[in-house]
This record gives sequence, C-alpha cells and structure tokens, in this order.
Amino acid sequence: MDKKGILDELAEKIRTHQFEPAREMLADMNPIDIADLFDDLPNDKCLVLFRILPKDLSAEVFSNLPSDIQKSVVEHISDKEIQAIITEMQLDDTVDFIEELPANLVKRILEQASPDIRTQINIFLKYPEDSAGSVMTVEYVALRSYMTIDEALAKYKNLANINNNNDICFIIGETRKLEGVISLKTMVLSDPKAAIVDVMEKNVVSVLATEDQEVVADLFRKYDLNSMPVTDKENRLVGIITVDDIMDVIVAESTEDIHKMAAIDPSKVEYLKESVWSHSKHRITWLVVLMISATFTGMIIHKYEEVLESAVMLAAFIPMLMDTGGNAGAQSSTLVIRGMALGEISSRDFWKVIWKEFRVSLIVGLLLAALNFARVYFFDSVPLNVIFVICISLYVTVILAKVVGSILPMAAKWLKLDPAVMAGPLITTVVDACALMVYFWLSVQLLTDIIHV
Amino acid sequence: MDKKGILDELAEKIRTHQFEPAREMLADMNPIDIADLFDDLPNDKCLVLFRILPKDLSAEVFSNLPSDIQKSVVEHISDKEIQAIITEMQLDDTVDFIEELPANLVKRILEQASPDIRTQINIFLKYPEDSAGSVMTVEYVALRSYMTIDEALAKYKNLANINNNNDICFIIGETRKLEGVISLKTMVLSDPKAAIVDVMEKNVVSVLATEDQEVVADLFRKYDLNSMPVTDKENRLVGIITVDDIMDVIVAESTEDIHKMAAIDPSKVEYLKESVWSHSKHRITWLVVLMISATFTGMIIHKYEEVLESAVMLAAFIPMLMDTGGNAGAQSSTLVIRGMALGEISSRDFWKVIWKEFRVSLIVGLLLAALNFARVYFFDSVPLNVIFVICISLYVTVILAKVVGSILPMAAKWLKLDPAVMAGPLITTVVDACALMVYFWLSVQLLTDIIHV
Repeated sequence: MDKKGILDELAEKIRTHQFEPAREMLADMNPIDIADLFDDLPNDKCLVLFRILPKDLSAEVFSNLPSDIQKSVVEHISDKEIQAIITEMQLDDTVDFIEELPANLVKRILEQASPDIRTQINIFLKYPEDSAGSVMTVEYVALRSYMTIDEALAKYKNLANINNNNDICFIIGETRKLEGVISLKTMVLSDPKAAIVDVMEKNVVSVLATEDQEVVADLFRKYDLNSMPVTDKENRLVGIITVDDIMDVIVAESTEDIHKMAAIDPSKVEYLKESVWSHSKHRITWLVVLMISATFTGMIIHKYEEVLESAVMLAAFIPMLMDTGGNAGAQSSTLVIRGMALGEISSRDFWKVIWKEFRVSLIVGLLLAALNFARVYFFDSVPLNVIFVICISLYVTVILAKVVGSILPMAAKWLKLDPAVMAGPLITTVVDACALMVYFWLSVQLLTDIIHV
Repeated sequence: MDKKGILDELAEKIRTHQFEPAREMLADMNPIDIADLFDDLPNDKCLVLFRILPKDLSAEVFSNLPSDIQKSVVEHISDKEIQAIITEMQLDDTVDFIEELPANLVKRILEQASPDIRTQINIFLKYPEDSAGSVMTVEYVALRSYMTIDEALAKYKNLANINNNNDICFIIGETRKLEGVISLKTMVLSDPKAAIVDVMEKNVVSVLATEDQEVVADLFRKYDLNSMPVTDKENRLVGIITVDDIMDVIVAESTEDIHKMAAIDPSKVEYLKESVWSHSKHRITWLVVLMISATFTGMIIHKYEEVLESAVMLAAFIPMLMDTGGNAGAQSSTLVIRGMALGEISSRDFWKVIWKEFRVSLIVGLLLAALNFARVYFFDSVPLNVIFVICISLYVTVILAKVVGSILPMAAKWLKLDPAVMAGPLITTVVDACALMVYFWLSVQLLTDIIHV
C-alpha cells in the first residue's frame, strides 16, 4: 500500500474511533516510514497520529520527524509524554532535536529529563559543531579486560535495554581508559572461559572528541568500520560514533563542497524549507564579490576600446574565448578540489598535478583551436590573420586556464583556506581576465593592417 | 611509528634475514595500514613484503592493495598462493580485482578458484555495472524460520569461518525465498528455546539485484542500515550488501555528480593514476559542445556590431553581465541538482522551486543592480541613461538566470536525462546568450541619443 493509501485508511479508522486497529496497523510498520507519513499532514492531524502511536515506537518515530513537526508536537503534548520520549530517545538524536528548538522549549525539555541525561545533554551541546563529539552517542556496552567471555556476555544481556543497534563492545581500564574492542560475534564464537584480554582487538582506531567529523568519515571509509570509539585527550572513552551517522556526514560534506564550488555559502537547511531571505543571504556575498571582480575584466576591454572600434568584429569572439577558458579552468579546479577532498591528491603532488594539467591542456587546446579554425574559416567572413589571432588566443587561454585551475585550489590549501570556497568561484573570473588580455595583446601585435592604435 | 619508520625497520629486518621478527611486526598491524605500506615501494620490494606477510593476513592485505600492485603480485606468485588468496578473499573483492586484470591473468585466476567460487564469480561479472548485484557479497549466514534460537546460534558458530563481519542473519524458506532477518544481538538476547519465526524481523528492507546502487545507498541512509539483503525477482535471496561498500558508493556518486556539473565525463580512475590521454578524452567532448554553443552567443554580438561601433563603451560591461548571470544561474541549478539527488526536491515541487528562485532573484538582483549603479556612477564616466541600461539588463539577467537555472535540471529529469550532465555545463551558455540579448535590445530601445542603427 502506498503512503496515500495508508493515510486514508488511518484517517478513516481515526474518524470512526477505531483507535486500536489503527495502532495495530502502525505497529507493523517501520518507524522511519511512519515518520514519513507526517510530512504532508497539517499540524492538528500530526498530533492525533502521534498520540495513537504504539508506546514503544513513539520515541523512534519522534527522532525521525522533521524538526518543525518535532517542535509542534512537543508544544502540544504533556510533560509526562515528553519525559517518556526523552528517556527512550538516543542521546545524540535528543541533542540534534534540542538544537533546533527555541530557548523556552529547550528549558521545558531539560526540566523533564533526568539529572543524568540533563548533564550529558549539556556536555554534548558544548562540543564544537561538526566535531566527533557532536555526532557521537553515549549508548554503548563497556566491559573490563579481566572478565571472562561468559561474564562479558552476561553483562551484555543485562544492558540489553540500551538503545543501541551496534554490536561492538568497548573494554575500558581503571580510569575509563580505552584498552580494546570486541565484537558480539567474537564473544559468541570464543571459548566462554577465555579472558576478554586474550581475545579483544587491541589495535583500535579511535578519535578525539574534538576531531573534525570529516576526518572521522575518512577513517570509517579507510578501515571499513561500523563504529568507532571517541576519547578525550587522556584516551578515556567518552562515546561512540556509528556508521549511520557517518553516512549522513559524508553526504553533508559533499553537498557543502558542491555548494561552495558554485559560489553559495553552505546551509544545513533543506532547499524547500529555507526561506527566500535566507536563500538570498547565502548567495549574495559571492555574487557581489564576483560582480566586482568581473568589472576588472571589463576594465581590460575598456583599455582596448580603440582596438575594438577599429575592428569591431573582434567583439563577437569574446564570449567564446571567455566561456571556453572558464570551462577548461573549472574542469581542472574541480578535479583538483575533489581529488584533495578524497585524499587522492596531497600537497607533495603539486608539480605532478601542474605537469599533468599542462599536458592535458596542450592536447585539448590544440583540438579546440583546430576545430575553431575550421568553423570560423568556413562559416564566418573573417580575414585569415584575425582567425589566427583568435585561435592562438584560444590555445593560450586553455593552457593558462588549466594551469591556473590546478594551482588555485592547491594554493588555497597551502594558505590554509578552503579550496572549494576559494578556487571554485574565482576560477572563471581569473581565466576571463587572462583570456581577454591575451586576445587584445595579440590583436595589437599581429593585426597591424586593421588596427591603428 | 610512522610509515617510513616501519618500512625502514622492515627493510633492515629483511636485509639481515630476520623474517620471523618482521612477520611478527606485521601481525600486530591493521591489514589496511599494511596495504598502505605497498604504495611507494618498487615492484620487487612489494613481492618480498607480500611473501613475508602472516598467512592469515595475506588475503585481506591483498584485497586492499591498489589494482596495479595486485596485478604485479599475481604475476609473480605461484598458483598455490593464488588459490589460497582467492579462497580467503571476500567474493565481491575478488570480482573487483578480476575486473581490473587483463584476460590472460583472469584465466589463470579462475583456473585456481574452486568450481563453486568460479561459478559465483561468473554470475557476479554478469550484473550490470553500478547495480546492487555488482556491490553485493555472498558471504552471509542463512537460517530457517523453524529453527530455535539455540539451533540458529549453533549453525552460526559452525559457519564462523565465513569472511563476514556482519552480524545480521537471513531467514530463508523452501526455495531460498527471503522471509526475515535477525541480528546476532537479538539471538543472544532471546530465549534459547524460542523459535526464530517468533523473534525475527519480518519487515525487511531489500532490493533487487538489478537495482541501481544509488537507490540502494538512499535506502541505507533512510533506514540507517548496516546491511541489506539482495533478492531476485522471485524474492529469492542472492546476496547481501554491507554498509562499508555503500559508503564508497555514496562518495563515488557525489564525485560523479561534481565532475558532471563541471563538464567532465566521470571516470573511476584516481586523478593521478589516470593518463594524460584519458584525462583529455574525458574533457574534450563538453569543451567542444560548449565552445560551439558559445559561438551562438558570439553571433548575438555580431548582430549588434553596429550598436557597439556607435557606442563602444557598452563592450566593457559585457564580462560583468555574462559572469554575474552565469554565477547566479549556476547557484540555482547547483542547488536544484543537488536537492534532487538527495531527494529533497521531487518533480511535483516544480512550481514551488521556480517561485522560490524567482523571489530570490528579485532580492538578489535588486541589490546587485543597486551596487552596480553606485559603482559605475561614482567610478566610471558613463552617461546616466547608459548606466540605467546596464543596471536594468543586470536585474533582468539575474532573474532570467535564476529561473532558467532552476528549470533546466528539472526539465532534464522530466526528459529522463541526467540533471547534473545537462544542466550543470549548459547553464552558463544559456544565461550568457540571454544576458547579451537583453543588454543589446535595451540599448537599441533606450539609447537612441548615442546609437543610430
């Protein structure tokens, strides 16, 4: 049954007060699919739907709701209901949810949380945005190295009610220092009498809570991890990061880079949910900067106005030169920016990259210049020496574009700036200026029969 | 100890024939870190290092080597060594490795594989590229619904040697039909006498083997999965996909989109490993297409050459209009392309998106036009009516750019074309042409005092 079908059937059941059958229908569904149902409902219907949820599902459904619906739900439910949800929800989901709320609601939520949870929420809220600490959770099973497998499994079963889908346990020492990890699988397969210390994995990949989430994502990818312990500077275990949160980090980081390269200040809000004002704010800065830098390109034309006046046909080739240069440069800077983000290109590859782009530009530029020569020669009525100036300019522009396009992001990195921000939007402007300078300079040098300056 | 330190120490041990201590050193390391060591070694050293690896690590190290080193290793080791590796390696890694090999080596590898593995490899090689089947693995534990938890755990322990880090077991019926899943955690926590059928999760998220890997990745993200069963059309279990492979899919798909938006045919080869010829081949198509389409923009200028001749100062503002329009359009198309890729924007949002972009363009365009007015008025010596033409053109261009920038990707999707390919590179060219047409048309209409056509 599709979403609409389910909603219609639920609405009918609710209208006729068949709450129990409605609840049973929901009990068989995946909580994430239930959360999806809320998307298109008006606020009052959301509340009714939330209220008929089976008790054991409400926290999980709640943590998957969009933040505006979460907000309207907590505004209307009782303190006791809030308390039940907070107790059941994973701590990192609670923190994500609280971060989106206005201060008065945050206060009400925190009052309903147990002192223990409240303390933990406050610790979480202090981790810098996009740090390992801000994506970790604290629901995990901690074991001691002197335990036997039997004792460890008993402890694991005792902690069964933890909201944790992860099957890795952590072994900590006296002061919560991380000593190793062990998977449930290893415990099940090991001799029950064996000591944890003899079967645990001691070679643990862990991160500091203050580490950037992008670094964490790279480690997950490199070591094919499902979870990773987070420690403080003294190597004390403070939480774990699970792979589902890391998938979201990977997607968010890619989106951020894509937006930056297109001259947009990245935003965490979904496209349709962001207001027109906020959209405008995220775009105007770069548009202004690039508009002003484009006036410098205009100044080059202004400087050569006399050239243009005596040979106005030159103007018709300006868009082709600027666009082809811009495209060639954007290809190079994009490849280098993404290559650096994926760790395929490091700073010691500087000369290798430039050398590669230079050779690519020789091939690509030659072909473009030849094609352009043929096109202008056969279809435009332009003197041969002008065609030569156009084609040489095109060739030189493509070479400059590709070399500059590879240098810009690497230089940005070297200056500790974000390559995507610096090189993405700037490349077109820089290459446009190069293209025009080459074009007019060559025209003045080589077209002395038609240009008199 | 860093990579160089480890390599130096290993080299010293090997030189003095202390193979056992060298092997012990490696035994304590993570196989992925060992694979990293091979990166900078010459071929002969790679072979020595591979040969001293502890037996139980060699398959895992091998599957993490870059494909060129894998190739040179298999060229030099014995058939028996190949056999040992193939038997130990995960089937999907074997297939990835074979796909990169020349035909003669593939033949040799397949001869060393057991008939069973050979059949499975051949089935794998038939799945379309980028399908669920091509990223799945066949190492999983299958259980029957009539088993008790005790029996299931016993079977699980018997299959302990499977190369499988995953803790989800699959329940299949008579003809391998998928009936449910159960996690090792659930089995450990359940009553040993309970029947699987009563505790298993029946609401399984699964995919067809022919499904696109991007759809699979979306499902993993949506449902926070660690693994997912793959079935054929008759719902028979054929394999499983694990989250580590999906992380790679997510990164690869983002990279592909980024490259497409920058007018590059995507390639699966790392930047530095791709040859200059191959790089050139992946870039030339779009450069040619865009160069030719830019000549149409040039034709607009050509058509208005007389206008330019009588008012050559107009030329100096062409780059600013073209670049600002291009940037404004690229912002919109990028946001829409990425929004569609992430499922935030669907086809029914068509009018909502255009309406949003239109309003954003009104705000952003007004600000840009005002700023531009101030700049030209105070710094350039241009008549007031010309300034008005420039600023109105700028405003109209920004509005057109944002609206066209949002329509292009959605239209591409509607025409079943790839939005990133179609809308990314084309937007600048389309907007450039719009900008020039508006600019010259307005000039002819409004600047009758200086232009006589």
